[in-house]
Amino acid sequence: MAKSKFEYVRNFETDDTCLRNCYIVVRLDGRNFHKFTEQHKFAKPNDNRALGLMSRSARSVMEELEDIVIAYGQSDEFSFVFKRTSTWFKRRASKLMTHVASQFSSSFVFYWKEFFGEDLPLLYPPSFDGRVVLYPSNRNLKDYLSWRQADCHVNNLYNTVFWTLVQKGGLTTAQAEERLKGTLAADKNEILFSEFNINYNTEPAVLKKGTTLIWEKRDETVTKCMKLPNAEEKEVVVTRSRRRVQAHHCDVIGEQFWEEHPDILEDDNC
Amino acid sequence: MAKSKFEYVRNFETDDTCLRNCYIVVRLDGRNFHKFTEQHKFAKPNDNRALGLMSRSARSVMEELEDIVIAYGQSDEFSFVFKRTSTWFKRRASKLMTHVASQFSSSFVFYWKEFFGEDLPLLYPPSFDGRVVLYPSNRNLKDYLSWRQADCHVNNLYNTVFWTLVQKGGLTTAQAEERLKGTLAADKNEILFSEFNINYNTEPAVLKKGTTLIWEKRDETVTKCMKLPNAEEKEVVVTRSRRRVQAHHCDVIGEQFWEEHPDILEDDNC
Amino acid sequence: MAKSKFEYVRNFETDDTCLRNCYIVVRLDGRNFHKFTEQHKFAKPNDNRALGLMSRSARSVMEELEDIVIAYGQSDEFSFVFKRTSTWFKRRASKLMTHVASQFSSSFVFYWKEFFGEDLPLLYPPSFDGRVVLYPSNRNLKDYLSWRQADCHVNNLYNTVFWTLVQKGGLTTAQAEERLKGTLAADKNEILFSEFNINYNTEPAVLKKGTTLIWEKRDETVTKCMKLPNAEEKEVVVTRSRRRVQAHHCDVIGEQFWEEHPDILEDDNC
Amino acid sequence: MAKSKFEYVRNFETDDTCLRNCYIVVRLDGRNFHKFTEQHKFAKPNDNRALGLMSRSARSVMEELEDIVIAYGQSDEFSFVFKRTSTWFKRRASKLMTHVASQFSSSFVFYWKEFFGEDLPLLYPPSFDGRVVLYPSNRNLKDYLSWRQADCHVNNLYNTVFWTLVQKGGLTTAQAEERLKGTLAADKNEILFSEFNINYNTEPAVLKKGTTLIWEKRDETVTKCMKLPNAEEKEVVVTRSRRRVQAHHCDVIGEQFWEEHPDILEDDNC
Repeated sequence: MAKSKFEYVRNFETDDTCLRNCYIVVRLDGRNFHKFTEQHKFAKPNDNRALGLMSRSARSVMEELEDIVIAYGQSDEFSFVFKRTSTWFKRRASKLMTHVASQFSSSFVFYWKEFFGEDLPLLYPPSFDGRVVLYPSNRNLKDYLSWRQADCHVNNLYNTVFWTLVQKGGLTTAQAEERLKGTLAADKNEILFSEFNINYNTEPAVLKKGTTLIWEKRDETVTKCMKLPNAEEKEVVVTRSRRRVQAHHCDVIGEQFWEEHPDILEDDNC
Repeated sequence: MAKSKFEYVRNFETDDTCLRNCYIVVRLDGRNFHKFTEQHKFAKPNDNRALGLMSRSARSVMEELEDIVIAYGQSDEFSFVFKRTSTWFKRRASKLMTHVASQFSSSFVFYWKEFFGEDLPLLYPPSFDGRVVLYPSNRNLKDYLSWRQADCHVNNLYNTVFWTLVQKGGLTTAQAEERLKGTLAADKNEILFSEFNINYNTEPAVLKKGTTLIWEKRDETVTKCMKLPNAEEKEVVVTRSRRRVQAHHCDVIGEQFWEEHPDILEDDNC
Repeated sequence: MAKSKFEYVRNFETDDTCLRNCYIVVRLDGRNFHKFTEQHKFAKPNDNRALGLMSRSARSVMEELEDIVIAYGQSDEFSFVFKRTSTWFKRRASKLMTHVASQFSSSFVFYWKEFFGEDLPLLYPPSFDGRVVLYPSNRNLKDYLSWRQADCHVNNLYNTVFWTLVQKGGLTTAQAEERLKGTLAADKNEILFSEFNINYNTEPAVLKKGTTLIWEKRDETVTKCMKLPNAEEKEVVVTRSRRRVQAHHCDVIGEQFWEEHPDILEDDNC
Repeated sequence: MAKSKFEYVRNFETDDTCLRNCYIVVRLDGRNFHKFTEQHKFAKPNDNRALGLMSRSARSVMEELEDIVIAYGQSDEFSFVFKRTSTWFKRRASKLMTHVASQFSSSFVFYWKEFFGEDLPLLYPPSFDGRVVLYPSNRNLKDYLSWRQADCHVNNLYNTVFWTLVQKGGLTTAQAEERLKGTLAADKNEILFSEFNINYNTEPAVLKKGTTLIWEKRDETVTKCMKLPNAEEKEVVVTRSRRRVQAHHCDVIGEQFWEEHPDILEDDNC
């Protein structure tokens, strides 16, 4: 077969290797999720089942791509951070981002029923788009995650007040929008507290802080069956260490989180 | 909130706009599909349900991204061709490939049951990786598709003989591999014919030629209910034109296909 | 010597291969040439010596890099077009543009005296910056050159009127600028003709059209000294074909130039 | 003029912005300098005039592009390091490398006579090609410079022994090559010392270590003429600080150089 005659087309592929010694961030965003949440009647302002499914799908990505050291998600977006020395897919940007987007999307459909049950079937296959961004220093990476968490806070405070005004205050969405125009964070906190007796600070951390996934070592105690030299069997208790993806809903902007988890980042001067 | 302080990290994103006036090809490949097909007990050498699911998922991609003018798939891969003048996502490579990978993957899980029924459940979420390649001329693009179809032919002929030797000839896989070492296409055809009375030419086209998806205009005849001026209603028959994704299993290497579908490609000298 | 310990830094280089089957254009622009022309007292609006030196330097580039099929220059810029199938420097963008920039700049200083003589010495080493742009089709490439030539026309007409108003009309530069604000090409032609009796159409083509350099085959007749078998010598006249860089100052926007030189461009559908 | 019709071609330019917060290194290499040194009869193994000219040209580049914090050269190559926070040319790789290549090349021709005098005229315009490499950390950058200096050492030791064997030992170049095959650094030192009484350690540092250019602040004492209130004039002595490019021929592999010049590099964690 004249295979060779066409094979020159391979040379049109270009190299998109990510610069070495930089953190590789892949961020996914839901496509047309405004419409998607409407059609699936998601609770407003936050749907805990949806947040759980997002987090479950992100865990599925981390378990497939072990060089991801931390992931952060909020609303319909999730960011995955590959360690700076990663050599997965030879650091080819296209491979990294499509693999993440694909694994996340298939997981989202696969685990849907676990979170939404039989009553709310998935109506059509949703999609996420992605991008790759490189960060050369620990400072830059922390600032990236802080940027996303600050965004989470700003949006969640707004949405909380907005939907409270609509759902409990009886305003139309247009009226609620008008009411909030130009208000600062303090104003919004005040509306919640004085008009609806809601203390924003006591809202669930998953909503205020988003979800941070990291690897954690756990000691597991298992009982194993051991053969003795005399051919008898004996049960022994064994302790072994296993890495597991663990979810946190804490502040990542301050230094405390990073001090408590010194293994996530690598030294800058390497 | 100190949002602005972190927002500088956006400047680390780089522009990956695809060169104008080139066809943009996104090719997806199944990840670890050897293991996946084993675990889901796919029929050998080809599983029609799986090919149907691949094709269904590809159609879902085309319906979401209308600038795709042709798609070609075989085995666990699928290529999608955006028209050279497309401005989807401002031609940003990362967005195009992640959207395609995501939509394909979520569709693959979503439509699984349509093809595999209740008896063969999906065991875990599969994934596909992708890449983007640009082709400046019609000749280059046709040669790309010819390359994939020639690859389909070479692999399918090999797999057909290999599994016939194993399934009907009683050879082990190692023996079948040894037997085929160094054989040419003619030798393989001869083994099939003289030893198993199989004429490769009469094998299904979907296996020998893969699947080509293109848009086709169809005239649809629908019956509509029309209100007359006197307030009565009357049924009228209306003919309207609709674009639909249509599957073909034909040769795309020769010129005939392209002559029969002159609208797929745009003029080179534009 | 611990050479190997450091050699990992080579892996930080990234591949910048230009997409195959596209014309590669390298355009150079003079840096701070406004100041440079002032300090070297260039004639206004055009200095023929400077244009000659630009053209001479461009020829030096073409003679060094034979895959350049056409070059076009005007004012303090020059564009060099590599043929679409070129494999010079493995099509690495960085190598192509730096080599062109370097060869042009060293030639500019080297040949300065040929054009400016001993009286006007070069005061300091000038510099040019460059860029690479790819064009997939003949139409795109012709439109690129047309764009530059249209720019040449617009600028030269403006500068011609502007400096005529200043030099012959006695206006200050500020007054000339004010006078030309909002004028169209026809207005400018009219000012030249009615106030200064200058017919712009008869201005030198090198100014109106810029300089186009292409390769041309010439038959050369040379007299060679040949040794005869009897050890005597005899002069013989030999005709041989040689490629030479030839300058044109003609229109490249219309089709005529391309029809007269069919060998410059390659077929689109290759 | 139909300028707008063609202007779409500008959109074919692609963005090549260098990743933020990384050192940008532009390295130049002489093209065909083997032939160039032969034709200009450079002294072997090192021509001090040529090294001086390289250094002078590099200084000219640094003075034009003030964001270059350090430059390192040896043989016919020179590397220029832009500070990691530089925003010159908006960090566009093509602009940075072509400007460096151009300024260096024009300077090389411009200052030729200063180093080679009237007796050895430049025969033709030489050229240099360049590339851009990014380094995210101080460690990476130091290792890059160490890599080049280690290369300088290895090559200079080899060349010193090689040409000593030829010039003083009477060997042909082929014999000298053969003699050195497989020898280690210690062997080469031994040949120099025992056969020619040359202690390599006392060779000039410029040859063993190459040339490092950095900015240094100098206090300059100048006498200025000052007008007094009573309209008289008075001479005053003023001390002012000026940045100047200073050449060093020292080790940059160890930490001492960096400790002595703490201002060259910026903090990693920025």
